[in-house]
Amino acid sequence: MDEKVKGSDNVATDQDNPLDHPAFPLHRGGKMAIQATVPVHDKDDLSLAYTPGVAEVCSAIAERPELVHEYTWKSKVVAVVTDGTAVLGLGDIGPEASLPVMEGKAILFKQFGGVDAVPIALATTDVDEIVETVVRLAPSFGGVNLEDIAAPRCFEIERKLQERLDIPVFHDDQHGTAVVTLAALRNAAKLTGRQIKELRAVISGAGAAGIAIAKFLLAAGIGDVAVADRKGIVSADRDDLTPVKRELAEITNHAGLSGSLESALDGADVYIGVSGGTVPEEAVASMAPGAFVFAMANPNPEVQPDIAHKYASVVATGRSDYPNQINNVLAFPGIFAGAFEVRASRITEGMKIAAAEALADVVGEEVSADYVIPSPFDERVAPAVTRAVAAAARAEGVARN
Amino acid sequence: MDEKVKGSDNVATDQDNPLDHPAFPLHRGGKMAIQATVPVHDKDDLSLAYTPGVAEVCSAIAERPELVHEYTWKSKVVAVVTDGTAVLGLGDIGPEASLPVMEGKAILFKQFGGVDAVPIALATTDVDEIVETVVRLAPSFGGVNLEDIAAPRCFEIERKLQERLDIPVFHDDQHGTAVVTLAALRNAAKLTGRQIKELRAVISGAGAAGIAIAKFLLAAGIGDVAVADRKGIVSADRDDLTPVKRELAEITNHAGLSGSLESALDGADVYIGVSGGTVPEEAVASMAPGAFVFAMANPNPEVQPDIAHKYASVVATGRSDYPNQINNVLAFPGIFAGAFEVRASRITEGMKIAAAEALADVVGEEVSADYVIPSPFDERVAPAVTRAVAAAARAEGVARN
Repeated sequence: MDEKVKGSDNVATDQDNPLDHPAFPLHRGGKMAIQATVPVHDKDDLSLAYTPGVAEVCSAIAERPELVHEYTWKSKVVAVVTDGTAVLGLGDIGPEASLPVMEGKAILFKQFGGVDAVPIALATTDVDEIVETVVRLAPSFGGVNLEDIAAPRCFEIERKLQERLDIPVFHDDQHGTAVVTLAALRNAAKLTGRQIKELRAVISGAGAAGIAIAKFLLAAGIGDVAVADRKGIVSADRDDLTPVKRELAEITNHAGLSGSLESALDGADVYIGVSGGTVPEEAVASMAPGAFVFAMANPNPEVQPDIAHKYASVVATGRSDYPNQINNVLAFPGIFAGAFEVRASRITEGMKIAAAEALADVVGEEVSADYVIPSPFDERVAPAVTRAVAAAARAEGVARN
Repeated sequence: MDEKVKGSDNVATDQDNPLDHPAFPLHRGGKMAIQATVPVHDKDDLSLAYTPGVAEVCSAIAERPELVHEYTWKSKVVAVVTDGTAVLGLGDIGPEASLPVMEGKAILFKQFGGVDAVPIALATTDVDEIVETVVRLAPSFGGVNLEDIAAPRCFEIERKLQERLDIPVFHDDQHGTAVVTLAALRNAAKLTGRQIKELRAVISGAGAAGIAIAKFLLAAGIGDVAVADRKGIVSADRDDLTPVKRELAEITNHAGLSGSLESALDGADVYIGVSGGTVPEEAVASMAPGAFVFAMANPNPEVQPDIAHKYASVVATGRSDYPNQINNVLAFPGIFAGAFEVRASRITEGMKIAAAEALADVVGEEVSADYVIPSPFDERVAPAVTRAVAAAARAEGVARN
């Protein structure tokens, strides 16, 4: 009996094993490692890198705290912090299951921006516990990249951390996406001879990305922007809005639209999808002539590119197998690299706008309907964003060296 | 006036600059970096290492949590946690100033044990806050190395973390030192034809290291051990003992000694110094014939080796420029590597004893008065400790793979 049970258990385990995707061999053992950047091969090495020599460095920092930035890796290393509640399209899968994404993020930081990053997946989803924990970790890190934390907690966590810390705190799902979207929008406008301020945009998705994009487009001077959630346009006349959406209704939707996403698209210049839903072809067809459709849901864009192309002048997605991929990796490595270069105390709107402009300018005069945003593998991207962000930090008075 | 002030400020800064020690150029920019261990050079790489491929790995872990050990770096990486309160001989210098030591520790983990490690210097010295913080961090790490946390808080922090976590939690200042001390003591006993159980030891220093060594020598079967703090031998008749020292008085000092360290050394077989004080030559002279003197304070041993050699058969120090260096790096990399190899849920006394035996056995039949402990650069050390610790973990039932 025992053997039979064991046997059937084994069979069940083997049959249930979904580990045949090619990602699994790649991820085995994790995707990152620590590397010593100084030699530790003999007694002399050890006496400088560790005791007794290290005591000189510790004493110097104790006496002049700003030396920590020069003589440790602190100001080169980002904590990639999550609570595992909004991981990719998978939702609340918990901290351990989020680790492969956090490691992925960490190696993208390194590969694209030369920035060291450490995955920190927390065993709490409580706002104040997350804030307290990150504040306590802060001596060891030069910046905090919040990642895959569900809305609306992500807004409060970011705000509280920014109030309490004097290092950059950046929720990439919000601001990284917003920066790359603005860059694409600038080039789409340039291509079609329009100004950002003439455009009316409609965003589907009122989560972290949708809300951040709306605010950022307003900061960049867009004519108007309305945001739709599952119940339709976020407008002041709705009585079902959370506090975050009520604030959104106040600052967006100058046209006073209400009702469905579809109706709001009638005559709109820009559609930005960060929702994961679908938009009917008739609604796309009702947009203004020469519209831009950025259907960024992954893996299924809200509007299939071949449908979008029938009506829109510029089409972008979140996918790497179509032109114009809106990919955060275009922004976050350079944004942190730039902030670190000048030891910025925070990342301002101006630094993010500068990042978007620099990203758009990499495309430059080669802009075309299929090329409004550079490839993540364009080696000019990170240095351009880094330079622009560092310069903006100096201009805005948040640089500290 | 302004210029004058600026000028004199600059001069003052330059004059005060103590950064001419050769350690400073080495430590500039920190001593470590993150390394990607998978390629991220093109779209295909990205689609496996990051989206969409990474979602497969995340989903698999969400469904079968034990897969986190196989498909992330979690079970290869140690958090090196400190609050900066007992850094080397420097004391409470705060978290930032402790970072050079934590980075040093991290690269020693890597170099000697192939174990990845991340410095986590916390902005709190409160026991419960430290415990809560580390518990919240635990999903991201396979083990916790506590470092340079002052006694007696270090004992409570370690105990509470061990109760709450199912990963190894190891205060190296206690147990690493104890393991290497026992290894040296075993070989010294072997060299002089004695058994551990015949020996009476006196330890000066009742901090983290002294207390841990006393307990560990008792676990290893030493005949007797007494510990002295600044006020003399820790004995049951004292009314000034902290709770930790009261417990120590109960389990140590079977001989019922009281009074000064010097008087306790009369006829003792072993002196172990982890105090930073000095021991007068007369006291060393009063020890039993063929005594062992392990004067481990850095940089100034409690007994100068040339004095010790006049009376002792084996002399060890904490310094690399004398024979028989008692150096924690002989233990902690292999202890964690061994624990990680079998995914041990904790580090037991048996695993530590096994580590000490393996370390002693590296010396083997070549043992001599100047060679009771291997060199940190002996490449046999870490593999031997790793194997022994992994085997002991299996034998003790704390291995999980």
